[in-house]
Amino acid sequence: MSSCLGPPPGSPAAVRPREDPRLADRIAVSAAAGRGAWLRTEDVRAWLAERRAAGDFHVARIPFAELDEWRFEEGTGNLVHRSGRFFTVEGLHVVEHDGPYGDGPYREWQQPVIRQPEVGILGILAKEFDGVLHFLMQAKMEPGNRNLLQLSPTVQATRSNYTRAHRGTDVRLLDHFVRPDPDRVIVDVLQSEQGSWFFHKCNRNMIVETAGEVTVPTDFRWLTLGQIAELLHEDDLINMNARSVLSCVPYPDGTRGALHSDTQLLSWFTGERSRHDVLARCVPLAAVRGWKHGVEAIEHEHGRYFRVVAVSVRGSSRERVSWTQPLIEPVGPGVVAFLVREIDGVPHVLVNARAEGGFLDTVELAPTVQCTPGNHAHLPVADRPPFLDTVLGADPSRIRYQAVHSEEGGRFLHARSRYLAVDAAEAPLEAPPGFIWATPAQLRALTRHGHYLNVEARTLLACLNAAATRSREGV
Amino acid sequence: MSSCLGPPPGSPAAVRPREDPRLADRIAVSAAAGRGAWLRTEDVRAWLAERRAAGDFHVARIPFAELDEWRFEEGTGNLVHRSGRFFTVEGLHVVEHDGPYGDGPYREWQQPVIRQPEVGILGILAKEFDGVLHFLMQAKMEPGNRNLLQLSPTVQATRSNYTRAHRGTDVRLLDHFVRPDPDRVIVDVLQSEQGSWFFHKCNRNMIVETAGEVTVPTDFRWLTLGQIAELLHEDDLINMNARSVLSCVPYPDGTRGALHSDTQLLSWFTGERSRHDVLARCVPLAAVRGWKHGVEAIEHEHGRYFRVVAVSVRGSSRERVSWTQPLIEPVGPGVVAFLVREIDGVPHVLVNARAEGGFLDTVELAPTVQCTPGNHAHLPVADRPPFLDTVLGADPSRIRYQAVHSEEGGRFLHARSRYLAVDAAEAPLEAPPGFIWATPAQLRALTRHGHYLNVEARTLLACLNAAATRSREGV
Repeated sequence: MSSCLGPPPGSPAAVRPREDPRLADRIAVSAAAGRGAWLRTEDVRAWLAERRAAGDFHVARIPFAELDEWRFEEGTGNLVHRSGRFFTVEGLHVVEHDGPYGDGPYREWQQPVIRQPEVGILGILAKEFDGVLHFLMQAKMEPGNRNLLQLSPTVQATRSNYTRAHRGTDVRLLDHFVRPDPDRVIVDVLQSEQGSWFFHKCNRNMIVETAGEVTVPTDFRWLTLGQIAELLHEDDLINMNARSVLSCVPYPDGTRGALHSDTQLLSWFTGERSRHDVLARCVPLAAVRGWKHGVEAIEHEHGRYFRVVAVSVRGSSRERVSWTQPLIEPVGPGVVAFLVREIDGVPHVLVNARAEGGFLDTVELAPTVQCTPGNHAHLPVADRPPFLDTVLGADPSRIRYQAVHSEEGGRFLHARSRYLAVDAAEAPLEAPPGFIWATPAQLRALTRHGHYLNVEARTLLACLNAAATRSREGV
Repeated sequence: MSSCLGPPPGSPAAVRPREDPRLADRIAVSAAAGRGAWLRTEDVRAWLAERRAAGDFHVARIPFAELDEWRFEEGTGNLVHRSGRFFTVEGLHVVEHDGPYGDGPYREWQQPVIRQPEVGILGILAKEFDGVLHFLMQAKMEPGNRNLLQLSPTVQATRSNYTRAHRGTDVRLLDHFVRPDPDRVIVDVLQSEQGSWFFHKCNRNMIVETAGEVTVPTDFRWLTLGQIAELLHEDDLINMNARSVLSCVPYPDGTRGALHSDTQLLSWFTGERSRHDVLARCVPLAAVRGWKHGVEAIEHEHGRYFRVVAVSVRGSSRERVSWTQPLIEPVGPGVVAFLVREIDGVPHVLVNARAEGGFLDTVELAPTVQCTPGNHAHLPVADRPPFLDTVLGADPSRIRYQAVHSEEGGRFLHARSRYLAVDAAEAPLEAPPGFIWATPAQLRALTRHGHYLNVEARTLLACLNAAATRSREGV
């Protein structure tokens, strides 16, 4: 019987410990399991290729005029779905004061943004096999992925999905997450998504265990945390939603402490939230200044940042075999990196309190570097993002982790970033304004709550967890 | 030397424990100290009366036309300050879907609301005397308090205050909080305020220790947590801002656990946030439907909820000796209560996930009952707030705590509520939808983070902490 079963029905009320005392061990056992009870790690790529071939998917760029269920709304020019559901592309006007107490220098800009004011579910089902927790991953096609299929959570469902607006087949296995068994929830937290491209978007990140039999559909496979850690070292394999959920796995903290106590870290963050004033409001897409509306794209007048484009999707096996939709396409690849160093023998990462126009609340904790270098190429060196040159110029011997990952392929077209952990052993402990050294264990503790780590920091945290797992395994 | 001093400057980098191992004991010692090193608890009322007399304050209602620095803005009709600072009174339009997954029944309404998009500081300075932490409380006049002076934090400063828009004397002792010593921060968190009256308002709740000499001005006194606990049992004595900060004091958790683990509690809360859709946007005050604009008040067409009114303030010793301002005046006294019961010997309170139009994020954790009964008197019994009749009809023997407290007297006129903890030993453990049993220790842990407990729940948590302190002292 699994340790997270509650008391049997009808038994007298009893308190339980506030933390499940066995969970940390069970997570550690799964992380140490380089082999799973089902698919071998080295066969995952071949299985994905096989599923890709079976799906027979085709994605093609189309002009906006060929979007069948989407149109530019009269008056606002917003790009909307006929049903009023899914998402809209609107304009965003941002004014950011980021000096001390919000009275410092400020930036102001306008941009298109995706608005999707509903909470989706990103859920991974977990189950013990041979005493080891396995996680059910799906080979899922998303039109924005260059390789189309990647490993996703068991379920990724917008509310439109699970209230059937999609008119496709049921979202499989959804019931484990819509009505989760409280005795079997491992992770359940609302986390933000890209604040540069989404307005106030968050999703429910969940891991729920089951003791029951699960009929595993063709596109799903059980993997251990150790297997997933290995796969997180490969390019374009674990999708963004899976990385986000995996970042919230409550790995045990084996470290002795941190440069700053949790109270100090939270106090610094409170100060950063307090000193930033970010006023962001949606405006009509037609009124966005500095962007050109063409027949195939809405793009920035200087060709920077991203384009809004449209695609058609055809395939044989997804919930809907054929549809069209808008996507956001960044103009170039991104670089997302943590500087890492040991302090007194304990690994730390350099975290940045970053304001993005689409965040619900001013700033979130972001990687040391998070940008599309091409957007800054025209700037004098002094005005380029801090630490970007350190990361781009790092000697290969200093790179502790790197892989290229895709952002959400259901909303973003070929949005790929190189994620890195770069050793900066000699970096000063006094971090510049807006930055602080924190341990991965401290960041993991914060993933229990929403609006602390942004989605890029969560991806890197999942990667750091994976790198730590791999180094313990001696791979 | 105090335990929370950091390493001396220039010493080699060292990690520290993520939690200060001595803090819980130091808090417990202060809570157990019924006598302080300075003012006796029984002399606090007399001292407040003396300060009240010295201040010679006069507050009078005035017509809007007599507001000197405030005016109704042309076009919007918003009530604004000539400087553009402080706050504005605008309109709020709220649409709330609260069925499963936001597709259930909905409510829609409009109301005036206070908008103050800047983070103020509520800071209590702490210092050890004779080995016991004392907290520096201020006898502060606020025009909305019926008794004018109450005990407030050491500092309560809007950004307008500390950037001098107030043109009065400096906010005293502010530097401890604007540039806090990271080694001496005990509490530092952004907490929300009344979501029914404020739009997205939050303040920085801080407790910072000092080892230095403090010159204590006339209106300030050092008190132990034990003394403050005793004073929290008196009516209209500890102001709202002080109660909010005090709710965040990291009292040690001496209990064995809880009915629901922390993961279960957070999962339930995530579910509540997910299933509520609250769309709230500011609209011009002039356009708010259902409210009448008179010469002395803006009030609801059926006389419910609250009025927007104006007052003049005269006194001799505040930062400004004379000013006029708008205030929000509720139409009747409020009732705010937790049902409490022991489960397996551990005290629990029944918490409600409550949507308020002014919250930044859908719902926060609120008391079991939080309402102005007069607003619901016209409704059939079945439509009255859940548990209201249980609280109002409770036998006196069941009342574990009660006192009347004032809401923020700088914004609200005579906004007083009876705060209660009512024993409900026989209440079922299966809570109705939207409610859950949690322990005070669990709620205290959540006060480390913003947007979990609303300000009424924080007041009651501070009161429960005080009641627990008193019962341990055998008072």
